[in-house]
Amino acid sequence: MGKNIQLDSHGRLRHFLSIEGLNRTLLTEILDTAENFVSVGNRAAKKVPLLRGKTIANLFFEPSTRTRTTFDLAEKRLSADVLNININTSATTKGETLLDTLQNLTAMQIDLFVVRHSASGAAHFIAQHVPDSVSVINAGDGRHAHPTQAMLDMFTIRKHKEDFTRLRFAIVGDVLHSRVARSQIHALNMLGCPEVRVIGPHTLSPSHVEDLGVHFTTNMEAGLDGVDVIIMLRLQNERMSGALLPSKGEYFHYYGLTEQRLKRAAADAIVMHPGPMNRGVEIESAVADSGHSVILQQVTNGIAVRMAVLSMAMQQSNPEGA
Amino acid sequence: MGKNIQLDSHGRLRHFLSIEGLNRTLLTEILDTAENFVSVGNRAAKKVPLLRGKTIANLFFEPSTRTRTTFDLAEKRLSADVLNININTSATTKGETLLDTLQNLTAMQIDLFVVRHSASGAAHFIAQHVPDSVSVINAGDGRHAHPTQAMLDMFTIRKHKEDFTRLRFAIVGDVLHSRVARSQIHALNMLGCPEVRVIGPHTLSPSHVEDLGVHFTTNMEAGLDGVDVIIMLRLQNERMSGALLPSKGEYFHYYGLTEQRLKRAAADAIVMHPGPMNRGVEIESAVADSGHSVILQQVTNGIAVRMAVLSMAMQQSNPEGA
Amino acid sequence: MGKNIQLDSHGRLRHFLSIEGLNRTLLTEILDTAENFVSVGNRAAKKVPLLRGKTIANLFFEPSTRTRTTFDLAEKRLSADVLNININTSATTKGETLLDTLQNLTAMQIDLFVVRHSASGAAHFIAQHVPDSVSVINAGDGRHAHPTQAMLDMFTIRKHKEDFTRLRFAIVGDVLHSRVARSQIHALNMLGCPEVRVIGPHTLSPSHVEDLGVHFTTNMEAGLDGVDVIIMLRLQNERMSGALLPSKGEYFHYYGLTEQRLKRAAADAIVMHPGPMNRGVEIESAVADSGHSVILQQVTNGIAVRMAVLSMAMQQSNPEGA
Repeated sequence: MGKNIQLDSHGRLRHFLSIEGLNRTLLTEILDTAENFVSVGNRAAKKVPLLRGKTIANLFFEPSTRTRTTFDLAEKRLSADVLNININTSATTKGETLLDTLQNLTAMQIDLFVVRHSASGAAHFIAQHVPDSVSVINAGDGRHAHPTQAMLDMFTIRKHKEDFTRLRFAIVGDVLHSRVARSQIHALNMLGCPEVRVIGPHTLSPSHVEDLGVHFTTNMEAGLDGVDVIIMLRLQNERMSGALLPSKGEYFHYYGLTEQRLKRAAADAIVMHPGPMNRGVEIESAVADSGHSVILQQVTNGIAVRMAVLSMAMQQSNPEGA
Repeated sequence: MGKNIQLDSHGRLRHFLSIEGLNRTLLTEILDTAENFVSVGNRAAKKVPLLRGKTIANLFFEPSTRTRTTFDLAEKRLSADVLNININTSATTKGETLLDTLQNLTAMQIDLFVVRHSASGAAHFIAQHVPDSVSVINAGDGRHAHPTQAMLDMFTIRKHKEDFTRLRFAIVGDVLHSRVARSQIHALNMLGCPEVRVIGPHTLSPSHVEDLGVHFTTNMEAGLDGVDVIIMLRLQNERMSGALLPSKGEYFHYYGLTEQRLKRAAADAIVMHPGPMNRGVEIESAVADSGHSVILQQVTNGIAVRMAVLSMAMQQSNPEGA
Repeated sequence: MGKNIQLDSHGRLRHFLSIEGLNRTLLTEILDTAENFVSVGNRAAKKVPLLRGKTIANLFFEPSTRTRTTFDLAEKRLSADVLNININTSATTKGETLLDTLQNLTAMQIDLFVVRHSASGAAHFIAQHVPDSVSVINAGDGRHAHPTQAMLDMFTIRKHKEDFTRLRFAIVGDVLHSRVARSQIHALNMLGCPEVRVIGPHTLSPSHVEDLGVHFTTNMEAGLDGVDVIIMLRLQNERMSGALLPSKGEYFHYYGLTEQRLKRAAADAIVMHPGPMNRGVEIESAVADSGHSVILQQVTNGIAVRMAVLSMAMQQSNPEGA
């Protein structure tokens, strides 16, 4: 897939499809822009007129609550007109191709598409077929990427830990099936993190996981040793009874994040999770609700980060317009 | 359940969960505020900027058309940003607990939740777990309460009958399963109504119905004698073929409100129904469409009453801001 | 059905239910008003405040993507408050009649209903039962009419071909089941088109098709000869395996619009389709994507035409208010 499709001729963000193909300057610009939008969420009137009269379509080919809702809120707080389109129940059932559906939507003068799809590459495909004036944001495609999730995670980390170049990270769980982990690893590498460890069973790790620039271990205790940031992944329900895992209980026994295990990490380590959590499967409730957990801050920050990406893609990244 | 959770430290409405725990002054304030909002619905531009930039989430765990739609309209006419969340098809299917779902939504800086749930106490539970700045409105919880419905009924009564302290009421039907009836009875008592009669079969009446301060009778004709206001309840479809009732036809024979029976009431009696009506089951069409019926006025008034409650809970009860 | 229900006492558009009953002056006024709204879609901020504070309900008793979405966008770009009501999943399931549902919605002070229904005459029925201040737009009723689709087609034709009185038309396909074709034929007749040909198998043509003022032929090549505008109809999936048609392949063999057949038409002929297309059934992909095709322009124009009809029905047709 093209590396430059995401940038316009001036090197500014046009589409946001994956962390790959971007650079540290641009990631930092996203984080800085999001910083400006945090204050909008704390105002009495949580609204700026930046995207007034723009039309944004949320194209969700996969169900989602958290991601769809925070995009929806980010768009409304930017004053855009929002179309929520659930593709399962719409024109594709009449036999229309994805490309026809897309061309029809662009003929409706949609300015930006937010796309979630179960197929890796779907957002890239759509970005390759929209007119020059239209932007595409990837809200999760197959096992490939979920770049706004990775950026809200980076934003949350930066709020707690100043310098990415001096941090040690552990990503725990089902990296094999996780678009979130893939985007996180690329972002951490790009921001200069010196050490990222992936922890999980062999059956849930990509076969060449170390090619991503990470260290892999099946030993939870060893993997957590001294880390500053622990990123838990969600264990998809469909994995729990399949050939890859023996049982929920056994998974928790080996890879559940307990208070006991958390002691192996740095004393001021933070714990992250993209949600929704399976309490008692990948994480103990006492940890999820502890002072180490920044899980709900991730949700709040997700709105500011999505406002930043939306406004940057529309080349209007100044929240002072409020 | 706590009696004071609904009020802030200044005795002002913060949550609106049930009529119980409030007082006549506050109920009257709701009715008076709603009076100010009636004019908004009659304007060419039915919109005031009172809640601009506020985010309201309608959390409906049970399906609803009328209540959800009138809340939605009330919120839009107050210029709020509205999220409609149908919980059946969302995150709880991924195994997340209600509390996690709620914490995630509050992390999205929702200002107010409108909640409908099949479990009695659900709105109270949610109100106990939201941050200080967030309000909760109960849009119906199990068999417990439906306080905005009761208040729109009180508002409609007050439009037609000046003084609550001189009126006789009949509530007819399935009081056993009706959160509407429970809230109505509390409101009528609080507003000083001297006589409330409950009419229905023994099988559909709470076992200690008279503890609510009402008179109970199974005799429709006797119950209607001289009343000023007749409140019909909806007979849920699931009751009609169960052990509690022999048949629709027999129910109508004993408890259907016919023109003939209506003659037993005061000459200027009004007839109310929360909708949707089962014509020919609990009410004869000729009565539903007669000059006595104020059923459609209840719907219209519901928007003004909901605008009043929403703006009061957000402490911004002045519609002159338009 | 009444011919004058669509017009108010000053002869202005109040409801838009069918092309029949209107006149050439009014159709031209719709096209001219739409012309003014085209520029709104090309602005950076695609929004005018014409219907601010008005409430519009999209009542879709049948599923739809394109029509519902373009109405939704047209309404939002006019700044109306929009209620999207899918009737399959709402109050009618509680046993309420259509008339009760409608009366409840009008009690909510809805200003305009956009109605799609599988029963011919549904929009007329609703128009006959709303209060004087309320307007109804037919977004497709059974096999009867789809007048906004016909008007967006007329608008698109006028953009390419100046004078309706000098054009030859071919409408190809399932005219028997098509509300689109019926509305197109009435509009073309009213605008003075001298020659409209209907092409299709006998089994898919109304028994007295020539009573509509058109010429009928089963011969695709002969029918296309020298025409200026080719209007393809969608072949409904349910026809493809029924008694009316042998197979998709055979339909394409006789009635599919191929590049070869297109040569029979005028050299500058345009090709239209209401969407969604069945590529390879009623139309060859090379034709759908060729320079003759104006299919995506139809979609774009649909928004401007719907904005025109909505604003005219609300008697506020000046887009300069922006």
